[in-house]
Amino acid sequence: MTETVGLVDKVDPTADAIAMRTIWINGEWLPENGAKVSVFDRGLLFSQSVYEVVPVIGGRLVNYSYHMARLEGSLSLAGISDAADWLAVFEEAVARNGLIEGRVYLQVTGGSSGDRDFLSTVPPCPPNRIVFTQSAPVIDVPAAKNGLRIILREDKRWKLRTAKTTQLLYAVLMKEEARAAGVDDAWLVEDGVITEATSANAHIIDARGVLVSHPVTHGVLPGVTRICALEIAREMGIAVEERPFTPDELFAAREAFVSAASALVLPVVQVDGKPIDNGGPGTITSAIRVAYVKRLLAGQ
Amino acid sequence: MTETVGLVDKVDPTADAIAMRTIWINGEWLPENGAKVSVFDRGLLFSQSVYEVVPVIGGRLVNYSYHMARLEGSLSLAGISDAADWLAVFEEAVARNGLIEGRVYLQVTGGSSGDRDFLSTVPPCPPNRIVFTQSAPVIDVPAAKNGLRIILREDKRWKLRTAKTTQLLYAVLMKEEARAAGVDDAWLVEDGVITEATSANAHIIDARGVLVSHPVTHGVLPGVTRICALEIAREMGIAVEERPFTPDELFAAREAFVSAASALVLPVVQVDGKPIDNGGPGTITSAIRVAYVKRLLAGQ
Repeated sequence: MTETVGLVDKVDPTADAIAMRTIWINGEWLPENGAKVSVFDRGLLFSQSVYEVVPVIGGRLVNYSYHMARLEGSLSLAGISDAADWLAVFEEAVARNGLIEGRVYLQVTGGSSGDRDFLSTVPPCPPNRIVFTQSAPVIDVPAAKNGLRIILREDKRWKLRTAKTTQLLYAVLMKEEARAAGVDDAWLVEDGVITEATSANAHIIDARGVLVSHPVTHGVLPGVTRICALEIAREMGIAVEERPFTPDELFAAREAFVSAASALVLPVVQVDGKPIDNGGPGTITSAIRVAYVKRLLAGQ
Repeated sequence: MTETVGLVDKVDPTADAIAMRTIWINGEWLPENGAKVSVFDRGLLFSQSVYEVVPVIGGRLVNYSYHMARLEGSLSLAGISDAADWLAVFEEAVARNGLIEGRVYLQVTGGSSGDRDFLSTVPPCPPNRIVFTQSAPVIDVPAAKNGLRIILREDKRWKLRTAKTTQLLYAVLMKEEARAAGVDDAWLVEDGVITEATSANAHIIDARGVLVSHPVTHGVLPGVTRICALEIAREMGIAVEERPFTPDELFAAREAFVSAASALVLPVVQVDGKPIDNGGPGTITSAIRVAYVKRLLAGQ
C-alpha cells in the first residue's frame, strides 16, 4: 500500500513547502505523517534506543562502514539484539526521497512487547527500526566561514557516552541554553576537562600547534568524522595528542573546532564571549575541512 | 470511533489472555494496539519526555495531588510546556479499563514538529500525552513478606535526577544485571554514598535505630511514597535523618527498605549476597508498610 508513494523531489532544503518524505519502518515504506510507533516502544518509554546519522553528499552515502561499526557497539551497550545490513535500505531511502545532500537517520529501539516493564521479555521482542532522510546543506554552510560561537556548561549527562543512545535531553537543554544566550552551541566540562560539544566532538590546536582531542575510550562518542579529521591532520604533518584538555587550554588555543557527521568540520571562534586567537576560523581547521570535503566528494 | 471499545474486565493480572486496554492519547481513546506516536516525537528521538505513575487501590487513585506537583517540576526541567488537570482523564481510564488495583501511567513528551531537530520549534509544538492503565497486585505481593535481594552498582545516570524523565536506560540495564545475578534489583552508589534504587527510593534503619534517607534536593527522585513513609515513621516516634548513607552503613543497618508508587514500601533483606541483620524483613519496615496500606485503604 505504501509502494505508491513513489519518489519525492526534495533537492532544495530551503523550499517553504517540503514535500512529504517516505520513511522506512520495520520493512515498510510509509508517508512521513503515517510513520508511527507503539506507545509501548521501549525507546519511547525507557530510552532503550540507539541511532546513527550517515551523511549523504552528491546523492551518495559516506562513511557507511564506520557508522555501522559504531552502531554495533551502541546496540550491544543498550542491550538491543539486532543485526542487519542497512546499505540497501539506506540507498533506497536516498533514491525514494531524491536526496542529494543531507543525511540518513537510523534509529533502532528495544521494540514493543505490548506493555510497560523495565525488564525485557524473554526472549526479547524484536527491535523497532526507523529510517528517514533529511535534506540539508552539508558542504556550503555559513558556519564554515563564520565559525561557531559557544558557551561552556557542566557535563551532567550519563556516563556511558561511547554509545550513541537517544538519551539526548541534556544535549537538547544545553542547545536551548546556547540559543537563549545568542550563540550556536555548548561545550561540556566534566571534572575540569572538556568532554565534547552537545552533538559533536571537540578539538583544539593548542598554543604549541598540537591538535588535542579527548580520547574516545570513555566519556565521549567515538566520532566517525573525528577519525577522518585526525587522520587528515596527521597526513598534514600536524602532531595529534588524544587526551582531555581544560577550559584554560581552550582559551589559550590557536584554533578550536568541532567534528560531526552533519557538520563535518567547523571552526569555533568564540567561547563564553572571548575570541579564540584572533576570533576568526583557524587556518589548520579550514585546511582539514577542505581536505575532508575533497575526500568526501571523491567518494572515499 | 474508539468509544465503542468500552469497559474491559481486567481484575486478574495473572490471566493468560489479557483483555485489550483502552488508552488515552491527545484527547482520544484508542485500543492499545492502535495507540501510536509519530516517529518524530521528541520523547522517542531525544528523550524529551517525563512521566508519572499513580497507584490505584480499590479502584481509586491515591496520592494524586502529590504526583501532579512533581509532574509540574519534571515538565519545567525538561523544557516541556504543558498544564492540564488529569483527574478526569485518569478516573475515566480507571473506569474504562475496570481497574481495581494497579496504576495509571502518564507520559508527556515534547511533541512532534514533523522533523528531527535538537532545538524545539518556536513556538514549541504541542506535547504528546499518553495515559494508560496497568493492572497489578500492589498490596498483596510476595516481596512484602520475603523481602528483596539487591546488588550494589555504580550510579552512572545523568545528574538531573529530581525530574522524572524517561531517560531510564541505565535503570533498565541495572535491572537486567540484577536479573542475571538472580536477585531483584540494584541500589546505586555515587561518590561513596547510596543514591537510590533503580526505580525506588532507598532507606535504612541504621545501627542506632534511626531511619536514614538520601535528601531529595538533588541526586534522587523526590518520591511521593517516600514522603508518606517518612511521615508515618515520624508519627511512630522513629528519628529520621535526611542525609546520604554509605554502603558500609547499609551493611551494618538493622533494616533496609525501598519506597515507590507501585511497590509501596518493601523490605530489603540481602545486599550483594550478605543478609541485612538476621536476613528477614525488618519490623519497623513492616510496621511502616502496614500503616501505609491502612492509610491507602482508608482513602487518605
